[in-house]
Amino acid sequence: MTFSFLEQGSATTPRGWRAAAVACGIRKAGRDDLALLISDTPCAAAALFTTNTVKAAPVLYDQALLARQPNGIRAIVVNSGIANACTGEMGDAAVGTTAQAVSEACTLPEDSVFVMSTGVIGIQLPVEKLRNGISQAAQCLAPDRGPAAARAIMTTDTHPKYCAVSVHLPSGGQVMIGAMAKGAGMIHPNMATMLCFITTDATMTPSALKTVLQYAADRSFHCISIDGDTSTNDTVLALANGLAHTAPITDVASADGQAFGQALTAVCQRMAQEIVRDGEGATRFVTINLRGATSDTEAHRAAMSVARSPLVKTALFGADANWGRVVCALGYSGAALDLNRVVLHFNDLKVFEHGLPIDFDEQAAHHRLDVPEVVIDIDMGLGSGNTTVWTSDFSYDYIKINAEYRT
Amino acid sequence: MTFSFLEQGSATTPRGWRAAAVACGIRKAGRDDLALLISDTPCAAAALFTTNTVKAAPVLYDQALLARQPNGIRAIVVNSGIANACTGEMGDAAVGTTAQAVSEACTLPEDSVFVMSTGVIGIQLPVEKLRNGISQAAQCLAPDRGPAAARAIMTTDTHPKYCAVSVHLPSGGQVMIGAMAKGAGMIHPNMATMLCFITTDATMTPSALKTVLQYAADRSFHCISIDGDTSTNDTVLALANGLAHTAPITDVASADGQAFGQALTAVCQRMAQEIVRDGEGATRFVTINLRGATSDTEAHRAAMSVARSPLVKTALFGADANWGRVVCALGYSGAALDLNRVVLHFNDLKVFEHGLPIDFDEQAAHHRLDVPEVVIDIDMGLGSGNTTVWTSDFSYDYIKINAEYRT
Repeated sequence: MTFSFLEQGSATTPRGWRAAAVACGIRKAGRDDLALLISDTPCAAAALFTTNTVKAAPVLYDQALLARQPNGIRAIVVNSGIANACTGEMGDAAVGTTAQAVSEACTLPEDSVFVMSTGVIGIQLPVEKLRNGISQAAQCLAPDRGPAAARAIMTTDTHPKYCAVSVHLPSGGQVMIGAMAKGAGMIHPNMATMLCFITTDATMTPSALKTVLQYAADRSFHCISIDGDTSTNDTVLALANGLAHTAPITDVASADGQAFGQALTAVCQRMAQEIVRDGEGATRFVTINLRGATSDTEAHRAAMSVARSPLVKTALFGADANWGRVVCALGYSGAALDLNRVVLHFNDLKVFEHGLPIDFDEQAAHHRLDVPEVVIDIDMGLGSGNTTVWTSDFSYDYIKINAEYRT
Repeated sequence: MTFSFLEQGSATTPRGWRAAAVACGIRKAGRDDLALLISDTPCAAAALFTTNTVKAAPVLYDQALLARQPNGIRAIVVNSGIANACTGEMGDAAVGTTAQAVSEACTLPEDSVFVMSTGVIGIQLPVEKLRNGISQAAQCLAPDRGPAAARAIMTTDTHPKYCAVSVHLPSGGQVMIGAMAKGAGMIHPNMATMLCFITTDATMTPSALKTVLQYAADRSFHCISIDGDTSTNDTVLALANGLAHTAPITDVASADGQAFGQALTAVCQRMAQEIVRDGEGATRFVTINLRGATSDTEAHRAAMSVARSPLVKTALFGADANWGRVVCALGYSGAALDLNRVVLHFNDLKVFEHGLPIDFDEQAAHHRLDVPEVVIDIDMGLGSGNTTVWTSDFSYDYIKINAEYRT
């Protein structure tokens, strides 16, 4: 392993990054609801945006900005409380005003500020409050405010999500990758928008950064969600400012590119797992290891079918070793399946083999599953395709949180 | 309208049909758990079976029987409590034994009996109990036992589902269509297997019957479920015994074929709606009318995306006029969408237009939606594609029922 997680690491751990978190009055009084993240120098940028046809105003703004300035990004400003989606022309204008306010308050070039929002949709941003908040944030930018910034972007999250790793590059030198994320969707990061911002002091081209970001997301964020089941605001953003002064990473297949990619994947998996652990009303963290599929793609399809099944998730809440619902979800996943070859384990207890359930002690199985961490191992017995995905259970609190979210 | 629903009509309302319901001891003592349905003469048969790769033993048996005897079916035997899925060779043998028991007890030809099961999977059928139950059922077959048979096939259903219509054929004469169904799946008829048996005294060819059955299912059962999200046992079966002695329906495009198809669609819609109304833990029945899509297929895709969204369903439970979750579900449905053309109504209250929410009174909207029947009207404003689908809300009881189903 060429990387290691840093104790208390955050998005401001890499060199040349500062952050601020302030309460500008969008959320309830005194609750930080604006985060500002700034690099000392211009960054190479890459991003993955929601595939939802309905895109929030800041997403459209950032997509256009990224196309214009893939090497010239200096800042990210994020508000929580209001998503600025379904807000028409007024919403578009509010994004521009927000970016301009950051540019003025921090003396940054125009066209160097990403804007993000998360919260309730269909409500206009209070632009004056935001402007005041940005002025205030510009005064208190500091390299130790990464955790506070992560806290400011929370919505239904119960705790902030951030981390950082140190990476030794094979070519010499050391870079750092930091991250902050929010999201607490349970079935999938749907309206509970998923945002993740990744910072690094590596020197990267935008295209190399995009390639490793996609690789990492395919093994992390896409392993907790359903392709297409995205909110209006979902965004994963990576910025590389080069302040570690290491050799530029232009080829992801190079030794440096591989080392960076592994570390970035670990960072994204940490953030994705934190989102699952903080799932709305979740009481169990569930890892699904699936192997023996005819390909990795088939493995992903089959594992996600199990991970998203509400009937599997309710059974997990009940600590019920319900192999039948797992088998059923495999059956309708569309992945190639020979039931006689499938072997299922729940927390190392074999429950299904040779097309038949094992005659296990239900009460003992219940006790074994009535724990915070459950591992479902699925061997399809067909090929070498494998994957790991993460999900959580489906409890009473999920209903409560989502039935009352807006009111 | 050439058809009308018959008061107290059931699967035994068409001429020449008898049924029996008995308690053979699979379920708790005294609870009817076996239904037998018999036609006085051989029937033309058609069926739609689960698309799940994992098929229960009776599904495989019936598929093969239908291929061999599309004009020779006399009976359906159904047990509730055990699904006979994931039961290996012993399960296959149990189906054969069951069919043979019916054939012997009722003096029917071999190869004329469909077998169906619904309930817990992975458990072997108690064949001796079934055989005794079948003997007993054969003694008490009667033309007024349709409702009792419908009750015997229930699992998590809270009430039996059955109906019948009388159809005036344009060519002269009158036929009847009866039905019984079970299913109480809420998100979709997943492990809560959906079974529906349709009886008629019309004279049909198997291929004409299959065509109208597919047409009717596409406008009913497929409008409450997700294609592919099927259980191991889902089956819709239609049998036509010809005892009305009307002109044979061989062409579904004929006037008689059209009249029959409309009536069958109404019957299937009634059954599908009953299943939604009986949704596990459902407190509201929700109709989603979607028009203005670029095609009927796109309309179906968009409407089902809304109908299956757990976030829409939890909002409905909370009587929250959450237009945002509807818009979001439209956005990730994959259907063509221009947000500025979308118009949304919740129970006739306009909530969204011109890309923006309407400034409605939240409290008044809450009262308007806090009722047992909710209608969501969606106009996509793009074309002439339309559909209607049905769903229910997502309540605390859904979690309770599904977390405790097996234990």
